[in-house]
Amino acid sequence: MNSIDPWAAEQSIDYSKLFDEFGMSRLTPEIVRKLDFYLARRGILFAHRDLDLWLRDAEEGKPVAVMSGIKPSSEFHLGSKLTAEELVFFQKKFGAKVFFCVADLEAYADNGLPLEQTHETAVSNVADLLALGLDEKNAYIYKQSQERRVMQMAYIFSRRATPAMLRAIYGERNYSLYFAALTQVGDILLPQHEDFGGQKRTIVPVGVDQDPHIRFARDIAFKEKFLLPGATYHRIMRSLRGESKMSKREPDSTLMLSDSPEVAKKKLMNAFSGGRATAEEQRRLGGEIEKDMLYEVMRFHFIQDDRLLQEMSDDMTSGRMLTGEYKEKWIPYALNWLKAHQEKKRQMLPKARKILQQMG
Amino acid sequence: MNSIDPWAAEQSIDYSKLFDEFGMSRLTPEIVRKLDFYLARRGILFAHRDLDLWLRDAEEGKPVAVMSGIKPSSEFHLGSKLTAEELVFFQKKFGAKVFFCVADLEAYADNGLPLEQTHETAVSNVADLLALGLDEKNAYIYKQSQERRVMQMAYIFSRRATPAMLRAIYGERNYSLYFAALTQVGDILLPQHEDFGGQKRTIVPVGVDQDPHIRFARDIAFKEKFLLPGATYHRIMRSLRGESKMSKREPDSTLMLSDSPEVAKKKLMNAFSGGRATAEEQRRLGGEIEKDMLYEVMRFHFIQDDRLLQEMSDDMTSGRMLTGEYKEKWIPYALNWLKAHQEKKRQMLPKARKILQQMG
Repeated sequence: MNSIDPWAAEQSIDYSKLFDEFGMSRLTPEIVRKLDFYLARRGILFAHRDLDLWLRDAEEGKPVAVMSGIKPSSEFHLGSKLTAEELVFFQKKFGAKVFFCVADLEAYADNGLPLEQTHETAVSNVADLLALGLDEKNAYIYKQSQERRVMQMAYIFSRRATPAMLRAIYGERNYSLYFAALTQVGDILLPQHEDFGGQKRTIVPVGVDQDPHIRFARDIAFKEKFLLPGATYHRIMRSLRGESKMSKREPDSTLMLSDSPEVAKKKLMNAFSGGRATAEEQRRLGGEIEKDMLYEVMRFHFIQDDRLLQEMSDDMTSGRMLTGEYKEKWIPYALNWLKAHQEKKRQMLPKARKILQQMG
Repeated sequence: MNSIDPWAAEQSIDYSKLFDEFGMSRLTPEIVRKLDFYLARRGILFAHRDLDLWLRDAEEGKPVAVMSGIKPSSEFHLGSKLTAEELVFFQKKFGAKVFFCVADLEAYADNGLPLEQTHETAVSNVADLLALGLDEKNAYIYKQSQERRVMQMAYIFSRRATPAMLRAIYGERNYSLYFAALTQVGDILLPQHEDFGGQKRTIVPVGVDQDPHIRFARDIAFKEKFLLPGATYHRIMRSLRGESKMSKREPDSTLMLSDSPEVAKKKLMNAFSGGRATAEEQRRLGGEIEKDMLYEVMRFHFIQDDRLLQEMSDDMTSGRMLTGEYKEKWIPYALNWLKAHQEKKRQMLPKARKILQQMG
């Protein structure tokens, strides 16, 4: 049986299996150097499929794509931000064309959210993307419900999906999940549609829990004579309480990019701390950085400068600061980022609305 | 297990099961009178679901629809003609709006026919429809690949389709058949889409072998709060060789509406005959009309006048004609119909092309 379940809200992942059993590749030091990306340097972006081939094509000036999608069922949280940062990175650094799918059909099927209702959430999500630095002139942003090429491909691909293959990849599931998975393959292969210039290397940045979708897409791509889509994999950040996976279903377990500074501050103050039980112990032993969720949030999200991050780590582990001081010092980095982002995002809302209105 | 298989090319149908086990209704004498339709009078159109409710709505002046679809994988044959006649009948007599789906995605998935190639076949099919009397001003003719509302509905409906339900209706099948079936439910419920005025009674005229699709559509319609689509069922004409089902895969087993008079004549001359082995036997016993395929073709298709059909039957059963004479007398009725139809169709080709070009 499959040890990865892309639809589970929480799970622990056996990382060692990924390379041996599922065939992912580790990021080599050479690729890490070439990317020069804080997420790669820190081992958060830690694995890939065919990123080497993608980089070669990009360096040779061939057209390359990076694609992702999101269900417009909620505001962006830290998980969505991570994927968005990756899209923007590959676009900025390598000139990749971004394909971004607003998975409104999936939101309807999974969450019962009507298409009109998710439109407003989608506008907000796209404004977040733009505020994070996405250049819409080198991007194709579309709604799943309006993109008939995706639907056509899903239909056509369905003949390649045998029950055995679906069971092997996803386990015994409800039909609607298979249907959604096939549509997602349409999304992943859309950059290679003839209307977008045909075959090209594509990278899909995902959390490592999404790998079954990648394997499924690669299997179909092989049979339908597309280039196999590649992927980059990031680790899954723990919840603010230190649990194994962020969940949209428990809003307090993550920051939303729309959280007011007050709400965000409260969440971060309550985040699981690496500090010791008493001041005396903290001074004597230092805190446990690997358990400190404030540090994890900063490392994944709000501090890109490695030396600054080291200072934060030292503040906790050296024992020179008590937990209260530590929080007072570092939480503002997150709040300032959030405030600046929210201001940029406000300015991007009209543009986001326009982009999505063109989609009908 | 299910005794009806909509994907089997040939099969014999246990008609007695249809009413008791699958819940179809017989056409009552009252409905037959009300329709006054040669196919109903002759027991060819012999069963229905909710046609009584549909007729009530039509008589009360409420909007009603009649829908069908066809894979543009070949020219119209006698089977497609039968369904088309029913569409035209319900449109003409009751003012029903016709929804006609050109199932080009299904043709691609099943037969590997690229969308551009099926376009030309679709033009020809639609011209046949128009030549058979369809009024395009009270019709919506669309390509499955271009109709995103159908795709949206298929996606949304997929959450209602449990594996158990799919197995119960269709048996254990390949995934692509389930996918096609769900898309077909989108087609069947399209007349009730809000863009077409929302809920309305819809009749789907089908061969009795297509009932699983109707039951599936009704099941989904119930869960998604549409009016249950109704259906009319016609008997399946035997092949010209007298076998149980016409098949597109054996072109000589049926007439194509595009057959030249020479080809059509040859096929009809070779059709399984009800005549006796010798002239002496024929004169003494009369022919076996129930085995005579020329008669079956005329009864289903080319002679709508009941008295004329009776004369044909008498010619065979009374023994007053030898088989050769009988064929010489009656085959021209079919050939004249074909010639007139082909001339009308030729005139309709530009209009058909225009209708389908608007669809992209």
